[in-house]
Amino acid sequence: MKKILLRLAKNAKESSRALANLSTEKKNEALKKMAVELLAQRDAILVANAKDMQSAKRAKLSDALMGRLYLDEKRLEAMSRSLREIAALKDPVGETLREWDRPNGLKIRKVRVPIGVILIIYESRPNVTSDCAGLCLKSGNSVILRGGSESARSNRAIIEVFSRALESAGISKGTVVNVPTTDRKAVDLLLKMDSEINLVIPRGGEGLIREVSEKSRIPVIKHYKGVCHVYVDEEADLAIAEKVVYNAKVQKPGVCNAVEALLVHRSVAAAFLPKAAQCLIDAGVELRCSAQALKILRQDSRFRENPKVKKAVSGDWGKEFLDLILAVRVVDDLESAVEHIGRFGSQHSDAIITRSQKAAETFTRRVDSSVVFVNTSTRFNDGGEFGMGAEMGISTDKIHARGPMGLEELTSYKYIVVGEGQIRE
Amino acid sequence: MKKILLRLAKNAKESSRALANLSTEKKNEALKKMAVELLAQRDAILVANAKDMQSAKRAKLSDALMGRLYLDEKRLEAMSRSLREIAALKDPVGETLREWDRPNGLKIRKVRVPIGVILIIYESRPNVTSDCAGLCLKSGNSVILRGGSESARSNRAIIEVFSRALESAGISKGTVVNVPTTDRKAVDLLLKMDSEINLVIPRGGEGLIREVSEKSRIPVIKHYKGVCHVYVDEEADLAIAEKVVYNAKVQKPGVCNAVEALLVHRSVAAAFLPKAAQCLIDAGVELRCSAQALKILRQDSRFRENPKVKKAVSGDWGKEFLDLILAVRVVDDLESAVEHIGRFGSQHSDAIITRSQKAAETFTRRVDSSVVFVNTSTRFNDGGEFGMGAEMGISTDKIHARGPMGLEELTSYKYIVVGEGQIRE
Repeated sequence: MKKILLRLAKNAKESSRALANLSTEKKNEALKKMAVELLAQRDAILVANAKDMQSAKRAKLSDALMGRLYLDEKRLEAMSRSLREIAALKDPVGETLREWDRPNGLKIRKVRVPIGVILIIYESRPNVTSDCAGLCLKSGNSVILRGGSESARSNRAIIEVFSRALESAGISKGTVVNVPTTDRKAVDLLLKMDSEINLVIPRGGEGLIREVSEKSRIPVIKHYKGVCHVYVDEEADLAIAEKVVYNAKVQKPGVCNAVEALLVHRSVAAAFLPKAAQCLIDAGVELRCSAQALKILRQDSRFRENPKVKKAVSGDWGKEFLDLILAVRVVDDLESAVEHIGRFGSQHSDAIITRSQKAAETFTRRVDSSVVFVNTSTRFNDGGEFGMGAEMGISTDKIHARGPMGLEELTSYKYIVVGEGQIRE
Repeated sequence: MKKILLRLAKNAKESSRALANLSTEKKNEALKKMAVELLAQRDAILVANAKDMQSAKRAKLSDALMGRLYLDEKRLEAMSRSLREIAALKDPVGETLREWDRPNGLKIRKVRVPIGVILIIYESRPNVTSDCAGLCLKSGNSVILRGGSESARSNRAIIEVFSRALESAGISKGTVVNVPTTDRKAVDLLLKMDSEINLVIPRGGEGLIREVSEKSRIPVIKHYKGVCHVYVDEEADLAIAEKVVYNAKVQKPGVCNAVEALLVHRSVAAAFLPKAAQCLIDAGVELRCSAQALKILRQDSRFRENPKVKKAVSGDWGKEFLDLILAVRVVDDLESAVEHIGRFGSQHSDAIITRSQKAAETFTRRVDSSVVFVNTSTRFNDGGEFGMGAEMGISTDKIHARGPMGLEELTSYKYIVVGEGQIRE
């Protein structure tokens, strides 16, 4: 297996050299061919996906996971459209990031270049296969795709389609490759190939990401969990607070930028909590409350016996529920909110609701998260919502890329220094 | 030991939170105090250094390494000056990198922030202790310093002086800390503390850097070897070529941006090689030549029996000599030069000497090194020469920072998104 994987990685490396110098037109042509072929070959892909779904059903995969694995005509169309959208995005490669002259006459230019070969390890979601292949191609990187084992047949079918599209556009099929086995040892072997692979992006479960970071000799950009907070300040507009908390919790509770804990300033807790609780509970949310929050809610007859209003246990702070559950705490002041987030948050997405410019400034300065929000929903931590086009995911690392990762975050840079015979004295 | 190191790392983390929000004035005040105290406490530092030098002598350290370890009044003054220069540099923290509005009215701002806690593992060079402490402080990062064991007493003395200076400026002494043991197990333990430490920068030998990358759970920015090339094109100005090759090899042969291999286009080899060889040999350089290069040189009576002109062995290509040794090869064309560099180079610094705009463009596009030079010396791959002020070193990675690492490269960013109650539909 090692031999096969090493050949695959060396091929990807070799292909990345050619790809780095490919014109934007050529790359876009290939992306459009991929978009067309994805639909032209729909039958083969849907047959493969049906087999994946059957196995998943036998393995008793949860409905949520089955939903992510499933493909149909409509989803293939969305994948195809996404590839065409990537073709329409600006090519980041070759962009001059900065240029300046030195007193000795040297002209220095900092230019964006592709990273090289990227290994992506991700969930059983065939649409991610297509998005990642597209984003890596456009940014000039070869990509080695390792999707979840439940999606193995679907991914193989999609990548076969892409291979033919690439070849017909005159691009090496080594540019977009599938790890040809679901054996987990394959990943361990790839993580040691630091001469061939430049970057690993693991997405998905915490355990997987931790394991990859520990084993890898290659730089890793983690897409970790999101323990997101909304803090309702003493000077909050409570109507905005209610709307934002509801949106951040209810609109899509299973994602990393959904809110997991609500912090409320004590001076507005009595006014805010019962109203917010009512609309959250109506949407099926369970509230796990601090002693003080519980006391306030239990003063209201609607919540006295309500099974959705519970006392929080210590493990509820800092937990990524990914479900219709919200931890609720009353805090003494802004400072306590910042401290709570520093201690229990995951530096992903945190929001303050306030009318005070000063409170907003303190919060955004002190809270060290990839995106800090003022008077809006944590759900906006998203490449599409930022206007980046498609995204690879949300980086929770502080090295290289933080927050939404789009095309630019898939690049590195080099310096070009032009002289007329200058030497160093 | 683990307990002590964990406390130290947690302290550094805690201190980094306060440091991230410290004003530029406060940081500069601390840097200036450090600069003053370094000279005021010179006696204690020089006594500690003398003891390090004695041990190093007993351990028969090479002259070159002894030279790097040695401190005297003049060197302390240079270190002190460097700290004052860092104080004068622009503070990168808080800089707005980009801002834009979204169609839904959200205002997005990308702001530079410190990384957090940085662990630096470096050679037995006490001046690096001082430079790294200064750069990390200015960029708002706590730093854990782990210098080579030969410099342990000197580093302890310097960091003690810095601790007092920091405290008198009202900054936690947990901000700049020394690993309190030279036991190598300490590094292994620190490399697992990924909740406390955000980045590891290993400098020095290839073996050390490889080991750190393998063991670390924390992101690593490698400062690897420099196998640098100068390619003399068929359209080169041969006077410039001679000057640049001489400078890149002779001016300081023991550094990572010195040239290790000379590639010469066959059409100018006969005209260029004998002249270049003469001046290199006069400076004591040994030439390890390809068959064709050797043939050309041996046609000249000066080199026929010259012991400095040798046949290259295969291991000479891609070797970092760090010495007055130069591998010399005649290549058929630009394409062969690019291929040679792709195969044997280390993506550090490579140069082309040419009058042809087209050749320069092809070379700078195709050669994927941190800095690619046209008609100038590879020795210019340096933070100071780039105008960055002091530098942490030269990154050979493509993730996060590439080439010279100054203050900006010691930062991350976060996004601040301000709304008026927008929610995601």
